[in-house]
Amino acid sequence: MNILYDERLDGRLPQRSKDEVVAELSRSIPDLNLLHREEDLRPFECDGLSAYRVLPMLVALPETLSQVEALLKQCNRLKVPVVTRGAGTGLSGGALPLEQGVLLVMSRFNRIVHIDPEARIARVQPGVRNLAISEAASLYGLYYAPDPSSQIACSIGGNVAENAGGVHCLKYGLTVHNVLAVDILTIEGEHMSIGSQALDSPGFDLLALMMGSEGMLGVITEITVKLLPKPETAKVLMASFDDVEKAGAAVGAIISAGIIPGGLEMMDNLAIRAAEDFIKAGYPVEAEAILLCELDGVEADVNDDITTVREVLESAGATDIRLAKDEAERARFWAGRKNAFPAVGRMSPDYYCMDGTIPRRELPRVLKGISDLSRHYGLRVANVFHAGDGNMHPLILFDANREGELETAEALGGKILELCVEAGGSITGEHGVGREKINQMCAQFNHLEIATFHAVKAAFDPQGLLNPGKNIPTLARCAEFGAMHVHDNQLPHPEIPRF
Amino acid sequence: MNILYDERLDGRLPQRSKDEVVAELSRSIPDLNLLHREEDLRPFECDGLSAYRVLPMLVALPETLSQVEALLKQCNRLKVPVVTRGAGTGLSGGALPLEQGVLLVMSRFNRIVHIDPEARIARVQPGVRNLAISEAASLYGLYYAPDPSSQIACSIGGNVAENAGGVHCLKYGLTVHNVLAVDILTIEGEHMSIGSQALDSPGFDLLALMMGSEGMLGVITEITVKLLPKPETAKVLMASFDDVEKAGAAVGAIISAGIIPGGLEMMDNLAIRAAEDFIKAGYPVEAEAILLCELDGVEADVNDDITTVREVLESAGATDIRLAKDEAERARFWAGRKNAFPAVGRMSPDYYCMDGTIPRRELPRVLKGISDLSRHYGLRVANVFHAGDGNMHPLILFDANREGELETAEALGGKILELCVEAGGSITGEHGVGREKINQMCAQFNHLEIATFHAVKAAFDPQGLLNPGKNIPTLARCAEFGAMHVHDNQLPHPEIPRF
Repeated sequence: MNILYDERLDGRLPQRSKDEVVAELSRSIPDLNLLHREEDLRPFECDGLSAYRVLPMLVALPETLSQVEALLKQCNRLKVPVVTRGAGTGLSGGALPLEQGVLLVMSRFNRIVHIDPEARIARVQPGVRNLAISEAASLYGLYYAPDPSSQIACSIGGNVAENAGGVHCLKYGLTVHNVLAVDILTIEGEHMSIGSQALDSPGFDLLALMMGSEGMLGVITEITVKLLPKPETAKVLMASFDDVEKAGAAVGAIISAGIIPGGLEMMDNLAIRAAEDFIKAGYPVEAEAILLCELDGVEADVNDDITTVREVLESAGATDIRLAKDEAERARFWAGRKNAFPAVGRMSPDYYCMDGTIPRRELPRVLKGISDLSRHYGLRVANVFHAGDGNMHPLILFDANREGELETAEALGGKILELCVEAGGSITGEHGVGREKINQMCAQFNHLEIATFHAVKAAFDPQGLLNPGKNIPTLARCAEFGAMHVHDNQLPHPEIPRF
Repeated sequence: MNILYDERLDGRLPQRSKDEVVAELSRSIPDLNLLHREEDLRPFECDGLSAYRVLPMLVALPETLSQVEALLKQCNRLKVPVVTRGAGTGLSGGALPLEQGVLLVMSRFNRIVHIDPEARIARVQPGVRNLAISEAASLYGLYYAPDPSSQIACSIGGNVAENAGGVHCLKYGLTVHNVLAVDILTIEGEHMSIGSQALDSPGFDLLALMMGSEGMLGVITEITVKLLPKPETAKVLMASFDDVEKAGAAVGAIISAGIIPGGLEMMDNLAIRAAEDFIKAGYPVEAEAILLCELDGVEADVNDDITTVREVLESAGATDIRLAKDEAERARFWAGRKNAFPAVGRMSPDYYCMDGTIPRRELPRVLKGISDLSRHYGLRVANVFHAGDGNMHPLILFDANREGELETAEALGGKILELCVEAGGSITGEHGVGREKINQMCAQFNHLEIATFHAVKAAFDPQGLLNPGKNIPTLARCAEFGAMHVHDNQLPHPEIPRF
């Protein structure tokens, strides 16, 4: 596989030797922790998308803002690209290093700066773990809503960079809906405060622009998040189905009944068996699909909603419906779901996790399409996903040691994402584009849209030094990928810089 | 008053005669409705901010997308600036014309294209009135939540351009939270679709960037909005206070009790008397302040919430609390609030409506500050506002026929906005920046932030033809306004284009 982020980067930036960059940074930034020996770099060669690996030129682990500021100024001067990394749990390769670049690791910025329970906000540094925010806020009966499956380990800075989601985002929104402000350092090492605690911010909405920008616009140095009151109660129903498409249809029926569950998740038979084998969650291993539906809020409302959801599930053809009888069983039901990825990992030497989003009504049709594609490519696909959001996570099982199987898995994954786009959806729900889905961006956007993305990027980072080769493909790449029409060997908009 | 949008525009764009532009547009665009005689232009010389008036060079009223496309291509070629206008109800002068520019009026694009009750969305053209969407959706028990006071007249395109709010935005969000996608035409006349029905959109969040962009990035040609189910019931409480600061403190106490009202509005004595005199809403004219608190949702929950809010209001020192006894009284309570601006208008030859936002906890202090400023400048100020959001609308009463009073009102308004910024708030909550608050932008943002806004604008509109002189001040203007430090007569970032 071609693991180069973009074969054109080397042409437009000067070649710098590792020795030169290490010498410059060491000289100008006191006490900066720099790693540059191969054995020290090895742990940083990939993030959660382990199929892609690149050894960075060097790794910087700053501990103060003035070190980050100085590092960016030096890299800007030397024209050395910078990839920012949080906890490294991302699933799309957004923090994949560059051979010719500095990997800026923000994990030492792990302080919760301030919690204001009256205003229901927390100011935190980017290296703070997602779950640590809720743990600290629980003193005040509050929590931070977005909950990626990796929430024990993933950092809030990475959540912002990828606009991360989670089980509870159906009701409470993605990261973008739960962040009020960020501080960033630009590639020139200048400080910007974006957003506020106020209702609306005048000027253009730069805060939304930062969400999911994958480290391409600036380095996030502080984040102000919203906190929510912990719901009085939460209960979970598990419904079994003898048919995947029926389960898909039940999802739309629940939402149409006017219920917004705290979480609404679906797993197919392969995922159910994997999770049950791993976690002993109490899942029905004979079912073709299960739905997990969590209702949270005030006790009386939750009980009313459970009655309604039961009726909807019965009409939709559920063969069995169980209410978790206590908090321990509820935790077990969710543990199966939250560990579904590693559980599937036990069934297969490798797996490839997709992250497409579709309108809910298309769920039955797209599930059928995935099943057809799986047969056609001869690879098993397990489906585990945020059904209420239409955010699918097909897991493609393969063995990288078998000649050609990685390529087959990638091709199958690409087809699944194209199917999502064709159904009116998008190529990412919550994992970001990163390195992984860069080619599919060419299918989702036309050349004007991609050129506009590059122009917006250039507004923040004119030299294209921040995480080049991720998130937004070059127009040249799209032309090669074949998703864009090239007339007479001329690229559209040739004046757009090729980064 | 200097009504020129920016004295530097003429220098950087060619002078075109009206005859030349009319001839070019008429020749190249079949059947385009163009107005260019002074008596035809007069009705378009201002929007809802009538203190600023400029006669446009000409007005175009296209009826088809291909006419808009052709118009933009011609204006781009001729380097003639374009100001887009919806219903003209905006309160910050965002649609104020340019003497040297075309006013593009989108009011004839007034078709509701499609309502999908299952997906709960409506696709509408930009000239559709805000209230018309809810009227059409009510067939399906649905409605569109953001409700500016001008909702009978204002158009959804203008709502998007200004990121409009309204009484119900405390619970249901601003326009940005209720729009899923827009289609735009760029200044080059190229079509872009931004956003989707999917959960998340990869790439940078251009949709959020369009919200509140005041026609500076593109011309909106279609909008997909979210629809919500109409609440089962809605009830409103009116609480009287003998002290404005006590009412301000009660607002924070309601929210801290875990209640998110459908609306939470405050009026002071001057506003109460004006509204009562005009509408006969049944307001207590002796009260120093009233709060209107609407609870909506399921009947049983609403009743529970009313009990809680009553208790909170009593503890906060309310002297009287009344529950609207039926739908007619509820409508009357709201009619007083929604007509408060024209009601105040009857008390004074002119008034100037502010739109600052502050953190809720600062309400008592800022109300006190406004009262002090009002005495200092010798002009009466009526306070009517979205208290729950911290979105204040002080109305400054003045008489433009009295020498110097407009200038005094402007100066007082500027001080009030600066007080909002100093309290951690922002210079606009829902009316936008437009022409009116362009100087205050210099107080809210530093030179790097303003330079970044210009760079983002240039990514969409490199020649600076779309609504120049609104929303984002030039750095030169900020230097003149005195809010920005200029060293040695050098502007910061001189390479930034001066539009």
